[in-house]
Amino acid sequence: MNVCLIGVSGHYGYALGGISADGNCEVAGVAPGSPEEDLTPLVNRLRSQGRNPVCFDDYRRMLEELRPDVAVVNCHFADHARVGIEVLKSGCHLFIEKPVAVTEEQLKALRQAYLESGRHLAAMHGLRYHPAFYTAWKAVRNGAVGEIRLIHAQKSYRLGSRPDFYRKRERYVGTIPWVGSHAIDWIRWFSGKTFDSVYASHSKRFNREHGDLEVSALCHFVLEDEVFASASIDYLRPEQAPSHGDDRIRVAGSDGILEVRDGKVWLINQESDGVRELPLEHPGNIFADFLGQIRGEKRCLVSAEDSFYVTEICLKARESADRRIPVRIS
Amino acid sequence: MNVCLIGVSGHYGYALGGISADGNCEVAGVAPGSPEEDLTPLVNRLRSQGRNPVCFDDYRRMLEELRPDVAVVNCHFADHARVGIEVLKSGCHLFIEKPVAVTEEQLKALRQAYLESGRHLAAMHGLRYHPAFYTAWKAVRNGAVGEIRLIHAQKSYRLGSRPDFYRKRERYVGTIPWVGSHAIDWIRWFSGKTFDSVYASHSKRFNREHGDLEVSALCHFVLEDEVFASASIDYLRPEQAPSHGDDRIRVAGSDGILEVRDGKVWLINQESDGVRELPLEHPGNIFADFLGQIRGEKRCLVSAEDSFYVTEICLKARESADRRIPVRIS
Repeated sequence: MNVCLIGVSGHYGYALGGISADGNCEVAGVAPGSPEEDLTPLVNRLRSQGRNPVCFDDYRRMLEELRPDVAVVNCHFADHARVGIEVLKSGCHLFIEKPVAVTEEQLKALRQAYLESGRHLAAMHGLRYHPAFYTAWKAVRNGAVGEIRLIHAQKSYRLGSRPDFYRKRERYVGTIPWVGSHAIDWIRWFSGKTFDSVYASHSKRFNREHGDLEVSALCHFVLEDEVFASASIDYLRPEQAPSHGDDRIRVAGSDGILEVRDGKVWLINQESDGVRELPLEHPGNIFADFLGQIRGEKRCLVSAEDSFYVTEICLKARESADRRIPVRIS
Repeated sequence: MNVCLIGVSGHYGYALGGISADGNCEVAGVAPGSPEEDLTPLVNRLRSQGRNPVCFDDYRRMLEELRPDVAVVNCHFADHARVGIEVLKSGCHLFIEKPVAVTEEQLKALRQAYLESGRHLAAMHGLRYHPAFYTAWKAVRNGAVGEIRLIHAQKSYRLGSRPDFYRKRERYVGTIPWVGSHAIDWIRWFSGKTFDSVYASHSKRFNREHGDLEVSALCHFVLEDEVFASASIDYLRPEQAPSHGDDRIRVAGSDGILEVRDGKVWLINQESDGVRELPLEHPGNIFADFLGQIRGEKRCLVSAEDSFYVTEICLKARESADRRIPVRIS
């Protein structure tokens, strides 16, 4: 299979890893998806792997000329849906950065294009493939905590110095849809529940001259069956911290409590005394799974429907934080 | 000083510990504060310490006859304010279980009685005296994390089998004001901020035949200066857990992040590489401090004003959860 990469502003690394792991596909071409995207680091990385993709200025021309099987879209966040729709209309399968859209209209149009295309689509919720989160998810889905009642998810990043487009809401889309989307995805994925409503808050204060970028955010979700979930989101992790991010989830259920912290999984339930650490399972690479799904050999852990649904929740959460009111989801 | 105990439904153990530590006061009498309170365990415990308090059926008669300096009130939660007002009017200093009231009218009346009495009052926010929380609080107040931006507090208890009055909302008052009051108190105490609003949820599901008792709850607070705080509250801790409660707080600020977990304090900021554990400080006993405050020798970590304010926030949070709307606080 031939793969084209559009944009370099997100997690294209998932695709490069999956292509290497797969061994049966090639990077045919690369192009920017948004103005001012500099392809140099991507091209250098591909060349160091012995790959020689054709570089295009215009991704539309690339899609026409190369007719790839799969396109990987990760441009400026505000452009995902527009580019994604063109990809689907050109007949490609679509591996797309999240959030997949930044307005409800865009989201509706992308979903429509997907349904009409008959192609495969997955958003880059690659953290589902993190061994600790995957192991935790499997345990929870196998009943380790009984019925889920309460979830707390945490995303905490170093701010560092971000690219310019992070400073503008209309390009960056906001910290809840960007950083928070992972936490929201976990809540959806672990619970399998529909979301009834969200109440959220976000603040730009102390963003170290990052314009519109929100540095702290908090979301409160009410899911079906009176399940409640919070997501704590920040760029406050000190530079001295031992890692870029501090990803966590705590899932409290009727029969046990499970946590992911420091890349490890901890469980208390009736089957053992005290807290026990679960051995990690390694699910592989998201893009390799996506390629396998296209070939009909396996299923990617991220479905197209969840890709749309998580984006919808992100947008409702951002709306709640902007308007300071609870927003209904379904 | 002479102390009388009214009720046995809360944390009178703080008072017994403080009386022992103080060495200069006596337990003059004990009485129930609510119908059906059984004094036997308290009286046995006092006798085992060589104390012989007079037992009364009616705390009013006890206050009249013994004229104690201090009364310790911890009856059924719905009766705190009523009994507390009588204590203050009798001229006693008041050490009272939280929440100190269960309606806004009660709270207003108690505060009025306090202001008119000229006596000292502290609520039983004894977890301020837990070495880890005290150490963490001192570090935060000394600037360890810079300006506070985001707080997450957790209270997780074993349910076990609770006394009958926990099953009735009108006696028990609710899990947010009872269990959650600690988390809310920490948020207030660490931040020193006023609270603008709360959005909260609670659920009785899976309460193992505990009537009205809510087993899971989640609160989202917006404080002044766009500080956000969540409180996750549950009775879902499995019986197999290594301790009754799993108390935590995470405070993320402009210059660092501090956590209390498993009775330890962890800090990351610019002053060290990686996460470091803070040595614990031991602040002593809340009731011993309260006695010292009455004598003019020291100050209790829990002020009367914070006792009222935290109760006000608890009641607004419960109202939010009952009505499923955001509620303004100040």
